[in-house]
Amino acid sequence: MPKISNKGTQMPESPIRKLVPFSEIAKKKGNKVYHLNIGQPDIKTPEVAMNAVKNFDIKVLEYSHSAGFESYRTKLSQFYKNQGLPINFEDIIITTGGSEALLFAMGSTMDPGDEIIIPEPFYANYNGFSTASGVNVVPVISSIDTGFALPPIADFEKLITPKTKAILICNPGNPTGYLYSKEEMMQLADLVKKHDLFLIADEVYREFTYDGDIHYSVMNIPGLEENAIMIDSVSKRYSMCGARIGCIVSKNKELMAAAMKFAQARLSPPTFAQVASEAALDTPQSYFDEVISEYRERRDTLIAELHKIEGAKVATPKGAFYCIAELPIENADDFARWLLESYDLDGETVMVAPAAGFYSTPGVGLNQVRIAYVLKKEELIKAVQILKEAIVVYNAK
Amino acid sequence: MPKISNKGTQMPESPIRKLVPFSEIAKKKGNKVYHLNIGQPDIKTPEVAMNAVKNFDIKVLEYSHSAGFESYRTKLSQFYKNQGLPINFEDIIITTGGSEALLFAMGSTMDPGDEIIIPEPFYANYNGFSTASGVNVVPVISSIDTGFALPPIADFEKLITPKTKAILICNPGNPTGYLYSKEEMMQLADLVKKHDLFLIADEVYREFTYDGDIHYSVMNIPGLEENAIMIDSVSKRYSMCGARIGCIVSKNKELMAAAMKFAQARLSPPTFAQVASEAALDTPQSYFDEVISEYRERRDTLIAELHKIEGAKVATPKGAFYCIAELPIENADDFARWLLESYDLDGETVMVAPAAGFYSTPGVGLNQVRIAYVLKKEELIKAVQILKEAIVVYNAK
Repeated sequence: MPKISNKGTQMPESPIRKLVPFSEIAKKKGNKVYHLNIGQPDIKTPEVAMNAVKNFDIKVLEYSHSAGFESYRTKLSQFYKNQGLPINFEDIIITTGGSEALLFAMGSTMDPGDEIIIPEPFYANYNGFSTASGVNVVPVISSIDTGFALPPIADFEKLITPKTKAILICNPGNPTGYLYSKEEMMQLADLVKKHDLFLIADEVYREFTYDGDIHYSVMNIPGLEENAIMIDSVSKRYSMCGARIGCIVSKNKELMAAAMKFAQARLSPPTFAQVASEAALDTPQSYFDEVISEYRERRDTLIAELHKIEGAKVATPKGAFYCIAELPIENADDFARWLLESYDLDGETVMVAPAAGFYSTPGVGLNQVRIAYVLKKEELIKAVQILKEAIVVYNAK
Repeated sequence: MPKISNKGTQMPESPIRKLVPFSEIAKKKGNKVYHLNIGQPDIKTPEVAMNAVKNFDIKVLEYSHSAGFESYRTKLSQFYKNQGLPINFEDIIITTGGSEALLFAMGSTMDPGDEIIIPEPFYANYNGFSTASGVNVVPVISSIDTGFALPPIADFEKLITPKTKAILICNPGNPTGYLYSKEEMMQLADLVKKHDLFLIADEVYREFTYDGDIHYSVMNIPGLEENAIMIDSVSKRYSMCGARIGCIVSKNKELMAAAMKFAQARLSPPTFAQVASEAALDTPQSYFDEVISEYRERRDTLIAELHKIEGAKVATPKGAFYCIAELPIENADDFARWLLESYDLDGETVMVAPAAGFYSTPGVGLNQVRIAYVLKKEELIKAVQILKEAIVVYNAK
C-alpha cells in the first residue's frame, strides 16, 4: 500500500474545523449552537456585486488573464490609491482568495527548510500554508497582557538565522484584533531592511478598525518597496467569503515575476467571482459605515459581557472581528468539546475556537479561546451568558 | 535587498504564455492571429449552468464546505456512477480547478526531493506544480512514432528509486491526444502495485474520444483502490474553463484525509462556480454528442491538412483536442516567434505552442509543436495553409 507524504501527515487540522463533529452531536441532540468560532460574517454582500453576476452575459466561460481581469486590476489600483496606498496596476496579481496569495508569497520567497517568523497567536492556516510550502514557522510570542502588541524587536532578532526569509504579520490581527501602530510598523520595516527579509502583511481586515485608529499599511512605508508584500481579499471587506478572490501586492518586480509564474501554472482566478469583486468596488461608503458601526457595537457588547465572567481576561480588539479571551478553565480544548457534547442551557450552547491552535509554541494559550463577533448583539449577549454559566458547571464537575 | 526563492527562480514559464508578447507584436501590426496554441475552446457553455448562476439568490456569499457543496458532491458521484465509475460521495473533494487537485495530490503523496515519473511530452504545468511542491519530475519518453503510446514498462522500472512516490498520466493526453488502452492501464496498475506507488490520472478530457474507443479510467481498475487518484475538472467537459472547478477523487482514505487538510487550509472552492458546475450536471446528452462530433470533424480536418505539409509528421490524436506535429524546421521555438514577429500571409499568421516546453528532457521535441483544434474547421484549414506557406518562407531565409 502506498504511503502518504510526511507533509500530508503533518498538515495541521484547522482548530476550528476539528470541533465540527462535536457541533454535529450538539445539533443532533436538538441544541441550538451559537457559533462564536467562525469568521463567517452574517453581513449582507453588497447588491451591486451580486447583481453584476446576475447580469453577466457571456456565451463561453473562458479563462481570464492569470493575473486577473485587466479591468479589475485597474479599478482595484484606483481603489487603493483612494485609500492612500500607492499601488499601481502592475503591482497586483489577483488570486483565489487571500489563501492563494499567501501560498504564492511563501513559494516566491521561501524554499523547503526556510524559516518564516510570525508573531503568535496567528491565523491557524498560516501553519497549513507553511507545511504545504515546506517552510518552518518560527513563532515569536505576543502576550494577552499587552493586548498582543508587537513583541520587542530584540525577540525577533534572537530568532533570525540564515534560513529566515520573511516575517509575516496579520494587521489588524486574526485572532488577536490587535492593530499595529505606525511606530511598530516602522520598527518592523527597519528590522527587515537590516536583515534583507520580506515583510508579508496580511491586511484583509484593513477597513475593520474601531477606535478612530488609522490602519498603517505595509505599502505605506517609504523605502520598503523591495521588502513589502501585501495580502488582501474581498472576503471580509464585502462579506464575500465564498467568492474566493484576493490578491498579492508588491513593488518588488522580481518577486512579482516569480508570483506570476505560480499564477500562470494554475491558469486563472475564478471568473464569476472576479465579476462580483470588480463590481463590489462600487459599493457605497454608507455600506462600510453601517458595517463598521455594527461591528463596533458588537465588539463593545462582547467585551462588556466577557468582563462579567469572573476570572476571565480579555484583550480588547482594536480591529478585525475576533478577540482572544483567557477563561478560568484549565484546558479550552476539553472545555470546547464539553460545551458541545455535554452541556446546554435551556437547549442552547456555544461553540468557541480553542486558542492553542493559533499558537505554534506547544503548551501556550491552553486556557484561551478565540471568539468571533460575527453574530448580532442579542445573540452575543446570550452566548456569553451561556459561556458564563457553563464555566461554573464545568469547573464544578 | 531580499532575495526570492530558488523555487521562484526555477518555476517554469508556461511554453504557451511566453509567446504572448510576440502575439501582441503581431496584433499591433494589424495581423490576424489564428490561435492554435491554447486549450480555450470556443464551444458554448451549457445554458443550464449559466442560468443557475443568474438565478442564484442569496443574501450572503458564504464559504462553502471545504470539500465543496454536499449537494454537488452527491450529484457528481451519481454522474460518475452513470459513467460506470464506482465513485462515492466521500471519495470526492471539490477543488479550484484540476490545477488545485493536482497540487493536493502532489502535496499529499510527496515531500520535497521526492520523485514523480511522468511520460513525456506532458501538460507543461505539471512542471510548475512539481516545482511549487518541491518535487522532482522524472520523465519517461514516449515517441511520436508510436503515436505517444505508453512507453515500455521496463523504461519506467529503470527510473524507479526509493524517492519515487507516484506516476502521473494524462488520459486522454494533453498534448499528445493519446488514449491509453485497457491493457496499458493494467500494466501501469501492476507496476504501481508492485512498487507501492500512487497512480495519478488526469482524466479531464475523459469525454473527448473519437474513434469509438472506450476511455478506461484509473477508477475502474479492480484492486487499485489504494493507489488510484483521479483528477477531474469541469473546464473542458462544459467549456467552463473560467469556473475553476475540479476535483480530486480517491478511495484511499488516508490520502483523502490528507488532501482534506490541504482543502481546509484554503477554506473552500469558489461558490458561484460550484453553483454553475452542479447545474451543469443536467446538461443534456445532445450537448456532448454535438460537441464530440464537432471536435471529431475538427480533428479529421486538422490532421488531413497537416498531412499536406511536406516533411511533417503527425500523431493522430484519439482523444482530447491537441496533437503534436513534427515540422520540417530545426527549432520550433524560433519558428513560432518568427511567425508572430516577422511573418504574415495576406495579414494573417498563426500562433503555435513549441513542444519543447512539454518535454522535461532537454533537447527533445525541438522541431515539434502542439496544435489545439479549438477553432472552427474553416479556420483550421486556413491556419494550416498559412503554416505550410510559412515553413517554405522560413526555411528559405
